[in-house]
Amino acid sequence: MEYQAILEEIAEDVRPLVGKGQVADYIPKLAAVPLDRFAMAVQTVDGKTYAVGDARERFSIQSISKVFTLTMALKAVGEEALFQRVGREPSGTPFNSLVQLEYEDGIPRNPFINAGAIVVDDILVSAFPRPRNALLGFFRQLTGEDTVDYDPVVARSEADYGFRNRALANFIRSFENLENEVDRVLSLYFAHCSLAASCVELARSFVFLANHGLCPTTGERVLTRSQAKRISALMMTCGTYDAVGEFAYLVGLPAKSGVGGGISATIPGELAVAVWSPGLNKSGNSLAGTKALELFTTKTGISVF
Amino acid sequence: MEYQAILEEIAEDVRPLVGKGQVADYIPKLAAVPLDRFAMAVQTVDGKTYAVGDARERFSIQSISKVFTLTMALKAVGEEALFQRVGREPSGTPFNSLVQLEYEDGIPRNPFINAGAIVVDDILVSAFPRPRNALLGFFRQLTGEDTVDYDPVVARSEADYGFRNRALANFIRSFENLENEVDRVLSLYFAHCSLAASCVELARSFVFLANHGLCPTTGERVLTRSQAKRISALMMTCGTYDAVGEFAYLVGLPAKSGVGGGISATIPGELAVAVWSPGLNKSGNSLAGTKALELFTTKTGISVF
Amino acid sequence: MEYQAILEEIAEDVRPLVGKGQVADYIPKLAAVPLDRFAMAVQTVDGKTYAVGDARERFSIQSISKVFTLTMALKAVGEEALFQRVGREPSGTPFNSLVQLEYEDGIPRNPFINAGAIVVDDILVSAFPRPRNALLGFFRQLTGEDTVDYDPVVARSEADYGFRNRALANFIRSFENLENEVDRVLSLYFAHCSLAASCVELARSFVFLANHGLCPTTGERVLTRSQAKRISALMMTCGTYDAVGEFAYLVGLPAKSGVGGGISATIPGELAVAVWSPGLNKSGNSLAGTKALELFTTKTGISVF
Amino acid sequence: MEYQAILEEIAEDVRPLVGKGQVADYIPKLAAVPLDRFAMAVQTVDGKTYAVGDARERFSIQSISKVFTLTMALKAVGEEALFQRVGREPSGTPFNSLVQLEYEDGIPRNPFINAGAIVVDDILVSAFPRPRNALLGFFRQLTGEDTVDYDPVVARSEADYGFRNRALANFIRSFENLENEVDRVLSLYFAHCSLAASCVELARSFVFLANHGLCPTTGERVLTRSQAKRISALMMTCGTYDAVGEFAYLVGLPAKSGVGGGISATIPGELAVAVWSPGLNKSGNSLAGTKALELFTTKTGISVF
Repeated sequence: MEYQAILEEIAEDVRPLVGKGQVADYIPKLAAVPLDRFAMAVQTVDGKTYAVGDARERFSIQSISKVFTLTMALKAVGEEALFQRVGREPSGTPFNSLVQLEYEDGIPRNPFINAGAIVVDDILVSAFPRPRNALLGFFRQLTGEDTVDYDPVVARSEADYGFRNRALANFIRSFENLENEVDRVLSLYFAHCSLAASCVELARSFVFLANHGLCPTTGERVLTRSQAKRISALMMTCGTYDAVGEFAYLVGLPAKSGVGGGISATIPGELAVAVWSPGLNKSGNSLAGTKALELFTTKTGISVF
Repeated sequence: MEYQAILEEIAEDVRPLVGKGQVADYIPKLAAVPLDRFAMAVQTVDGKTYAVGDARERFSIQSISKVFTLTMALKAVGEEALFQRVGREPSGTPFNSLVQLEYEDGIPRNPFINAGAIVVDDILVSAFPRPRNALLGFFRQLTGEDTVDYDPVVARSEADYGFRNRALANFIRSFENLENEVDRVLSLYFAHCSLAASCVELARSFVFLANHGLCPTTGERVLTRSQAKRISALMMTCGTYDAVGEFAYLVGLPAKSGVGGGISATIPGELAVAVWSPGLNKSGNSLAGTKALELFTTKTGISVF
Repeated sequence: MEYQAILEEIAEDVRPLVGKGQVADYIPKLAAVPLDRFAMAVQTVDGKTYAVGDARERFSIQSISKVFTLTMALKAVGEEALFQRVGREPSGTPFNSLVQLEYEDGIPRNPFINAGAIVVDDILVSAFPRPRNALLGFFRQLTGEDTVDYDPVVARSEADYGFRNRALANFIRSFENLENEVDRVLSLYFAHCSLAASCVELARSFVFLANHGLCPTTGERVLTRSQAKRISALMMTCGTYDAVGEFAYLVGLPAKSGVGGGISATIPGELAVAVWSPGLNKSGNSLAGTKALELFTTKTGISVF
Repeated sequence: MEYQAILEEIAEDVRPLVGKGQVADYIPKLAAVPLDRFAMAVQTVDGKTYAVGDARERFSIQSISKVFTLTMALKAVGEEALFQRVGREPSGTPFNSLVQLEYEDGIPRNPFINAGAIVVDDILVSAFPRPRNALLGFFRQLTGEDTVDYDPVVARSEADYGFRNRALANFIRSFENLENEVDRVLSLYFAHCSLAASCVELARSFVFLANHGLCPTTGERVLTRSQAKRISALMMTCGTYDAVGEFAYLVGLPAKSGVGGGISATIPGELAVAVWSPGLNKSGNSLAGTKALELFTTKTGISVF
């Protein structure tokens, strides 16, 4: 079956789930997102785009942005330097826990829990004179879209309610695993969590990972094959909060989710797929989105397991 | 390249690593295993066997046996009943930790940490009048080998040094998540950890998982396709102790390791592969074995990521 | 005012509280104790006894017995040997937690949490050929009463429901901080928790602590002055479960409580006082008993603070 | 024996310990304090002062200041309001741990661990328009000395190295147990930790606690008798970091220590005693100071136990 037909079937199949679940409510602007949205887009490594639903509507990509900051940090300092300061294993504790840090001397378990993403941001602040600009440039290049941008309202709300992230950053700093001022690092953190993009843009921005590190449209090598594999493995084992086991079973693809209701996944060698529906399940992953990805692997016959 | 040629290349490539690492030393008989052993075997879903090294020499499969007890428990009580009593997510704490249990009311995080395997064993003790016999029969059927057996010396040592497992079992019982006498449950636990098999036998015993639940030799359906997928996903996210992230990156296959130095993995739809070398790395996984599996995915060109 | 008059006033004052709170219900025989009981007794260092209420009725002294086992262990092996194996500080975690043990390598925080009492019992099992007899003899000598005894029904129930204590003992053993068989150690533990005594007997049995280690009736030195001070300090900082701060404020005396509803306290140099009322507050201390001791310090004008 | 003679004897007795231990080194100015200092002072409730050693030399009182902030907060909002936001029990974890907070929803265990002191400071920031001035005024009134003051160099260093305290404050705020801006609260915290006073001044400032809440020199009631008792009980059970059990045994007095090497204690109804020697033992309490207080209770014959 064609991808377009598959996407349309999925949109039909998940309709009963759209509007279910809870929208993230710790930020006013996220809480105001209509619960009835659903979008899905596929970008193949050979350059084709398929989409269904509100696939051109932008939403807050939130933690999905951690894949881009991790990519930039890997490029900037290399695997060895990066993984001296952050682990590569699932954490087993909530994504914003401070407990693990205290018992493990300020080394976050992986780059996708908040603590780990803050360390990654610290690396970017050290590596780039204007890290927010650098990240935005990188994201625009990956999406091929000059209008994707930070959402200043969301970024400010993140800062206003970001006490736990501020606690994490100061705690990490107390272990001397942060080189820069807490405020500078968190400013980048709150910014990239506010990045807004559509499913079509998000699928495009992930296709270099599906293509083993090489951007298929520009031909530019973003990451080495090994680095791309590293990020994919991290998405598989740590990319969907405290539900990676369940997600591996249901979907079986490397993926990264965000509390804005987006999920980006890849089928290595084939395509990137992005889905968005703001209603979240108990684990903080999009309810309809998870189901849509599960159906996608079933209908395409592609499954890791 | 042919699988046989690949195995022989790998045996050559990993030779410098064989003899490195630490042998498990908490049990005299494990401590006495010669560090210089290496074996690898492939069993394809279409019935072919390939082997290299000491692939007919039996060793203590230890925690790899937890895949068989989980399989039997899934068959016996079904997914819903089983996963009310044990989780499906990586634990982030050492495999024998009691901390997670205390904070999560006696529900082990997954069936592969010791606590989870003990709950699975409790299910088998309730389901089978003679669970040790039932398990041995199942293992013999899977391997097609009537002489595979428990190692009574190892089982007794496990019992003699098993204070932490006894603590776990009593602790779980205090949360009323154990139905049977602690001693009966642990007797099964210590027994299945003592199962001895060769790489050839181990690869055969895993091929039903590669074949989506259907035993290719007997044609018998061991598990539903969904159940087989469930176990594979659990192996991917929880199968290699506190190194699943690293293992996913290096090998990228669902696998289960044991402190005896064995690792069994599957390439769903294709084959099962078993490797053995008793020297362990810091995470408790076979050092040369992990490398051999990494080379196997590289040389066959099969990779999840 | 005379002690007798004070006790009678107190009995009157606490009447509205008697019958309030929860009786310990993890053991049938404890759950069956009538909630309306209240008793209080004073034994002065110069040999006088005062009592009110059901002061001759025996009840399960439970954890109060840990003062006697600690006393025997201190006499048997001395302070240095004992406190290499158990700490001297409040734990901050529930009395039966395993978490602290895991983080602190099997060294219990103090001798009054269950884990610490189990280590103390292990010392007694090593030191005495028949530790249960030795303890009973010691308790009879302290009370001056040959009929005080273990309650076999309670002891058996403790064993039947003692999964968490069995978990603790095995866990401690896994850290090699237990020399004897778990079952032998726990048999002593369950026995001494089942000791039954009346308030009059309990007050008598504590008067050697009030008298700085010297038994005032027999003239025998039970402990050195320093050892008696050590135990009193431990009672003050660790004697009343997770409520030592509140108890120090309200009562301000070294004391040890039990879930049977008894509390024994001392006014060093003056007297021992025991109280019993089976209704427990949220912290597991006798509700009316705590109030009675608070009134006792107020009315006698004796207060640490 | 006269107090003066006792102090002189003690100064002689502890001489071998002065210069031992480690000076606090997380702040340059603390690290630079000469290790050879020793001072001790007694202030009786009937107005007499006794002193020995460097008893007029000021030092950084650090956490001892938490007794004054707690006193002010108790006066300002009362016991009920205060203890809804902070507990009254020993913590069992290091004084600056975040773990307990995470498991107990942002309610610090007691007012003397850093987290608890920060909540107390938040109460003062809400209660006083200029809390730093208010605290300084209060401290000057208690000491009767207009020249005692904050040390701006120490306060700035506390701020510069205070990442863990900043983590704590933000973490507490994330649980909505902080009403004011983190920076305002910490500014007060870092200030009062920098208060400098001599042993004579410190003994004077604690005598109201010894006198059951009534300042003996001015006749002013600082706290109710019950509030004074509350603070004394908290000092006894939580005042000396993770060594309250040991301190209760050795000294047996309500006391508060600071990493500057000072300890203030009271004998209720009699006197306040302050000691200073900058070398710390493993628990963070003054080495020679603890010994001096132990000798003081021995030589005066005053002992709780």
